Amino acid sequence: MDMNKIEHIGIAVKDMEQSNSLFSALLNRRPYKQEEVKSEHVITSFFQTGESKIELLQATHPDSAIAKFIEKKGEGIHHIAFDVTDIEEELLRLEKEGFVLITKKPKKGADNKLVAFLHPKSTNGVLIELCQEIKS
Amino acid sequence: MDMNKIEHIGIAVKDMEQSNSLFSALLNRRPYKQEEVKSEHVITSFFQTGESKIELLQATHPDSAIAKFIEKKGEGIHHIAFDVTDIEEELLRLEKEGFVLITKKPKKGADNKLVAFLHPKSTNGVLIELCQEIKS
Repeated sequence: MDMNKIEHIGIAVKDMEQSNSLFSALLNRRPYKQEEVKSEHVITSFFQTGESKIELLQATHPDSAIAKFIEKKGEGIHHIAFDVTDIEEELLRLEKEGFVLITKKPKKGADNKLVAFLHPKSTNGVLIELCQEIKS
Repeated sequence: MDMNKIEHIGIAVKDMEQSNSLFSALLNRRPYKQEEVKSEHVITSFFQTGESKIELLQATHPDSAIAKFIEKKGEGIHHIAFDVTDIEEELLRLEKEGFVLITKKPKKGADNKLVAFLHPKSTNGVLIELCQEIKS
């Protein structure tokens, strides 16, 4: 059933400790999880808001996509992630529609998900992530 | 109960017709509503995704905040809106927490909502909207 819901919004931050405090005050709740994704050189922190999450992302290495994003654009919204039931099938559908895939083959992301990205040049400047829950 | 859910994500676009086609293909569904907000000099288009919406925004006047945003940053994500139960109470809470309010007094926005904005300089570069459904 395509894009089921907004799974999360990813926000690039410079200082996780400071931003955790800021978003805790903003949302009036604590993050429910923090997790390092070593392959992406980031630490992440998650806040639940309804059925969706706010994911803060801080780079742990200058080569991280998050470090490059902040260097170019400053802190702010980095991507929107949609929950999908079958990520391979959805990537096929989107490629046929003419969207440019950054990730041809889904990879393991944060929060026990298979993830893939669409290039913002084909999506009105919005970096779109698809994610599918990994069933254990 | 503070921020109940992500009400919508606002995306600044240059050409509504083109972007409606693009997001229809991306989300594999049609927009359920289009609406002009004359006071803000924008036309809007809404797509439902789970409990949240994607709101496309196109300026109808060069003075519109959306026109200025696109001039400075290009097309892309403009704001995140959270659904709140009592917008006045929530603005009071957030001002006490040190957030900078752009809108001291909530105003009528699109989609039958009272809306108010927090300044991105106090929220990690993210323009945050609060919205409360207007009960008829």
